[in-house]
Formats: sequence, C-alpha cells, structure tokens
Amino acid sequence: MSKFERRIYNFCAGPAMLPSPVMEKAASEFLNYRGSGMSIMEDSHRGKLFEEVLDTSLSLLRELLSVPENYEIMFLSGGASLHFSALPLNLLKDGESADFAVTGIWAKKAMEEALRFNPVKKIYDGEDHKYTESPELNDSMVNPGAAYVYITSNNTLLGTRYVTIPNITKAPLIADMTSEILSRKIDVSKFGAIFAGAQKNIGPSGLSVLIIRKDLLGRSGRTVPILLDYALTAKNKSMYNTPPTYSIYMAKLVFEWLKDLGGVEKIEKINEEKAKILYDYLETTSFYNAPVKPNSRSVMNVVFTIHDKNLESKFLAGAEEKGLHGLEGHRLVGGLRASIYNSMPKEGVIALVEYMKEFEKKA
Amino acid sequence: MSKFERRIYNFCAGPAMLPSPVMEKAASEFLNYRGSGMSIMEDSHRGKLFEEVLDTSLSLLRELLSVPENYEIMFLSGGASLHFSALPLNLLKDGESADFAVTGIWAKKAMEEALRFNPVKKIYDGEDHKYTESPELNDSMVNPGAAYVYITSNNTLLGTRYVTIPNITKAPLIADMTSEILSRKIDVSKFGAIFAGAQKNIGPSGLSVLIIRKDLLGRSGRTVPILLDYALTAKNKSMYNTPPTYSIYMAKLVFEWLKDLGGVEKIEKINEEKAKILYDYLETTSFYNAPVKPNSRSVMNVVFTIHDKNLESKFLAGAEEKGLHGLEGHRLVGGLRASIYNSMPKEGVIALVEYMKEFEKKA
Repeated sequence: MSKFERRIYNFCAGPAMLPSPVMEKAASEFLNYRGSGMSIMEDSHRGKLFEEVLDTSLSLLRELLSVPENYEIMFLSGGASLHFSALPLNLLKDGESADFAVTGIWAKKAMEEALRFNPVKKIYDGEDHKYTESPELNDSMVNPGAAYVYITSNNTLLGTRYVTIPNITKAPLIADMTSEILSRKIDVSKFGAIFAGAQKNIGPSGLSVLIIRKDLLGRSGRTVPILLDYALTAKNKSMYNTPPTYSIYMAKLVFEWLKDLGGVEKIEKINEEKAKILYDYLETTSFYNAPVKPNSRSVMNVVFTIHDKNLESKFLAGAEEKGLHGLEGHRLVGGLRASIYNSMPKEGVIALVEYMKEFEKKA
Repeated sequence: MSKFERRIYNFCAGPAMLPSPVMEKAASEFLNYRGSGMSIMEDSHRGKLFEEVLDTSLSLLRELLSVPENYEIMFLSGGASLHFSALPLNLLKDGESADFAVTGIWAKKAMEEALRFNPVKKIYDGEDHKYTESPELNDSMVNPGAAYVYITSNNTLLGTRYVTIPNITKAPLIADMTSEILSRKIDVSKFGAIFAGAQKNIGPSGLSVLIIRKDLLGRSGRTVPILLDYALTAKNKSMYNTPPTYSIYMAKLVFEWLKDLGGVEKIEKINEEKAKILYDYLETTSFYNAPVKPNSRSVMNVVFTIHDKNLESKFLAGAEEKGLHGLEGHRLVGGLRASIYNSMPKEGVIALVEYMKEFEKKA
C-alpha cells in the first residue's frame, strides 16, 4: 500500500504539495530502492545508485527547459537565500555594481544582501503601489557598468510576475525563478543565470538549482566560501561535498513526472487554465478582491483578500475543514493566497472556487 | 506495509544507513503525516506540524547531549564543508589566526578553507605517519593569539579518533564531530563549538548541526553570507530562510529512537562492543591489517586492508553478495572500511566478521 488514502489540497506557498504520483512512487520505494535492500537516502553519494539519480536529474532538467550547451546546471544546498549572497560573490568584482528591479520583498532582500558586499542600483521600485504591478524593463534603464540586472520573475509573496520576460541585452539578466521554474516555457539563452529554491516546483526544501552561462563562472575572481562557489560546484558536477541526495532523488521523480505529462509546454497550458478559473471568479465578485493588476498576475500564486477582513479567519477555518489547506497570505502582508504550483490538480482549484462561492453566499 | 522485506547491512561512510525502526516509521507516515492528508515534506515550514517537529528535534538534541543553557543549537543547510568556511567568517576577526590539529584529510581541508580567509597555524600534523595516530593536545601547544583550536574528533576517512577529548582551555576548542556525534558521551562545556554534517548519525545529507557557546556568536563582526551566519541563524531559531524540513523531521525520528534506546550512554556501550568485535578479530589475523594505532582507533569507522591487495575487489564483490554493502575505503586512500554508526546493529558486525573469516579461509 503506497497510495494516498486521504489527500488534501495543499495551497501552501512552499514547502508545497508535490505531485501525488511522485509521492506515491517515492513511498513505494522508500524502504527498498530498486531491490537494493536500502533506501536511496541511505546510499553513498558516490554509490552507483545515487550517481545515476544525479546524472538523470541534471539531464532531465536540461531537457525540460531546453538549456543550451553553453550553460551549466547544478544543484546546491540551501534555497534562494544562498544565491542572494552567492550571486554578488561569484559575479561581481570588488566595487562593481549590479542593477535590481525591486518588484517585491524577495527582490528587496536579494538587493539588500548584495549591498553587504557590493554597490547596487535600483532600476525600479514598486513599493509606492505596494508591488501590485510588474514594470516593463528595457535596456535604456540599465546603468552603465552594471555587471548584471536582477529580477524576481514571479513573486510568491505578492502574486505578481513578469508576464513577458524583459528583453535585456546590455548586461546579463539574472532571475530568481523559485516559484515559477518549470511552470512556463522560457528562453534560457536570454538569461545570464536562473536560480530557484526547490520547494515549490522541484522537490523538498534545502535544495536549489542554478542554471548559469559558462562564461560567467569565476567572473569575480573573489574568495567564495566552498558551498557558495559556483565554479567549484560546476567543476565537481554538484559533488564537491556531499549533496542533499534524497532531495535530488525527489527532484528526479518530479522531472520524470513532468516529462511524462508532456513537459513544460503542457503544464503551462494547465497552469493557465487553473489560474484563469480563479482570476475569472475573482473578477465577478466584489466580496473578494484581487489586488494585483491584471497585466502582472502570477499564474502560480493567486493573492486575494476578503473586503471584510474580519471574515478571513472564518474563511481559513472553513477551508481547512474541507481539506483546502494553507490559504493564509504571507505573514508580512496578511490576506489570502492560493499557491497553485505544477503539482496542484485542476480539481483542487475548482474545489477552492466552489468553497469561495459557498462562503460568499453564507456570509 | 511499512516494514523492510529485505534489509542489507550498509557499511557506507555516509550518507549511511539509518536505524531500521526510524526508516519504517518514516515510511509509515510518508503519505499521511498524523492524519493531515499530506506528507510532512509538503507542509509549510511555518506550519504547526513542522514547527512542532523543529522544536522537538532541537530540544531532544539538547537533552541527548546535555547541552548547557549557554549554548545555542541550530540546524543549517549543507554539511561539514559549510562550517569549514563559516567558522573563520563567524569567529575570526580580520587578520586573526586559528590553530589546527591536522589529524587527517578533513582537518586539512578545513584548515585550507580557513586559510583563504585568515592566517592559520598548524599545531600538529600527522602526515608523516599517514595519520594513523591522534596526538595528545594540550594548552602548551596553543599559539598566543589563536582565536580557537580546531580538531576533527573522529576521522571518517582514516579511522582514527581522539579517544580522550583534548583538554584545551587557552582558546575555545572547535570540533568537527560529523562522524561520531551522538555516539559517545561528551562534555559540551569543554568546547567553544561542535558541528556535524547529518549524514552519519543524524539523518539525510544536506543538513548540519551546530552547537555553539552563545558568547562566540557574532564574534568576528564580519559580513557573513546569510546561510553561513551563525548569529542570524540563532536569532531566527534556524528559520531565517526555509530550512531542509524533511531532513529535520528525519533527525527528530533518529533522536527519538536514540532516546528510547537509552540515550547516548547506552549507545556508547553498544558501539564499543561492536567495534571490539571487529578490532579483536583484526588482532588475531595476519591476513588482514588494521593500520591505525590501538590508542587512536575509531569506534565508528574501522579501517583495514588485506595484506594481499589484489584480493580486495574479490572481497568486496563477495561481501555485496552477502548483503554487506559499502565496505570499500575512501577513494583517496583505498583499502577497506566498515562504518558502524549508531544505526548499525551488532548483528551486522558479527555477520561481517563471519564473512571475513570465511573469506580468509577460502583465500
């Protein structure tokens, strides 16, 4: 018995629900990986079983995102915060500056961390309108001498995204794609680097992924701590030190599931359908409110509020009773949020909208 | 069905086998943690379920090692290598020096990493005798101005340990206990800090544990990257960023198992019995050789060779057939090695010795 007997719809922003077939596969081989008499969690990272897991996951990720050959793909421990520090240390020479488009709290945090090591410049700040819209960035906004331009492609916390990825050519574009990687087609060749914490669309927390143009490796010439050193990690094929082996195994299962489903192109369509169900409903009601401007709405994180804020805790309690879990907004902003990553089935979104209608009717 | 149907004895140095009851417990609640309808892997790190896991694991670790109140305990991502960089960055002021006792390759690596940021001094180097013995360190060896003295308490790779922990009072003693934490009683108050990668006696790889005297936090005054910042991690109770939640859950199960078994005092006796079985046999035979001096032998990693080196690959193949897995030595030194961490039952060691005898007879 390695099947879910009961399964809730988990709308947590991350760590998030993982695809049910992935969880069931992992459960079925948890105690005996391919007849080995042990868990893959217990295998040496230099063991044949794990080496195959690592190779397969890296090549599946390359395939799923059509990553060109002049880009390295690597796994690192930690999440996005690791890269907030690692990016300036790996890419910026001493005193060199980078440009930041501050479309939300995560971009702000990344900028503040970079500022501890290097000068930074803001090319956009959405604070005035509470980050409810994403800007149209272009080359004319890039500062002379900027070593890179940093964006958060999707804002988990505030529910915005760049519907169209900015076309920046004057400096390498670096994107935090933590909450939307593998959810839509992207042209990797338009980026200098893409990174993502695993805990939304990839696997368990404690793992991150980096895709980086090879010529950027070692650019800073600085002394970078081992686990933050991109060039060292690339040279050692993500195995300079013992990597988070079980998380990489889970990532492999997620990549296999996504490939079998039809890849990123297919999941993008499903994701758009799912988000449309929610946003369409939010447009028809004045009971709820969707604060994000329609031209900037995230397909992964749908942020909304109830006009009568006093009803939110009742809404959340009722949702939990119906197996609709984790709908509270981020503790910094409050309100409500439905994170509907790749793993969330359409049925979950339909169930949520049904509950929202019912709650509105009763209120 | 959440029981092992087949279980090998896994002698890997790490990631290593985990206690069978722990693996079975984890399997049984993998798809439905406490009736929640999801895996604990899928819960938000701010969720009630995970917060209880985190609190319990931290307090169990404090209890198991009798950690005094003036020490912080925290989880960090990454393994021991993270601390190779984090220690100098957190504890050494600019230009300040630390002392290193180089009893093996891991201490050497830690020293080399520290040297990228600060001056270091070697107070012992065992390279001449191939690291087959641990020194007796004392205060007279500590250099004036040394901000700390660094040791590797147990050498996974070479099978040595400090049978008695050095009594150093002139500077804080910092110990990498990756491969022996929780295997024997230690007096934490004798250390400035203790750290350990999880993948031997704690849980899956990608997680590490730090126990540090509170007055040392923030000592360097330096700009430390977020995920390496001990003071920041302590202040945020291991939750500045999303921690490796599933690995912390596994650690909790291991700590609970160890407590139920009778704690560190009890496992220490079992570990000594296990190691004695192997070392006693190695003393009686000239077919095999135990290179480590008797006064320095590790209880966790028993290193040995076959005098006729040509027989080693045959030995390993035969062992695998009998479900005795992972007995090859580290790729840097070759030979054979049996890692017999807390999770290895006595029966596994007995089975190994039986096989060794049989192999000797047939050869």
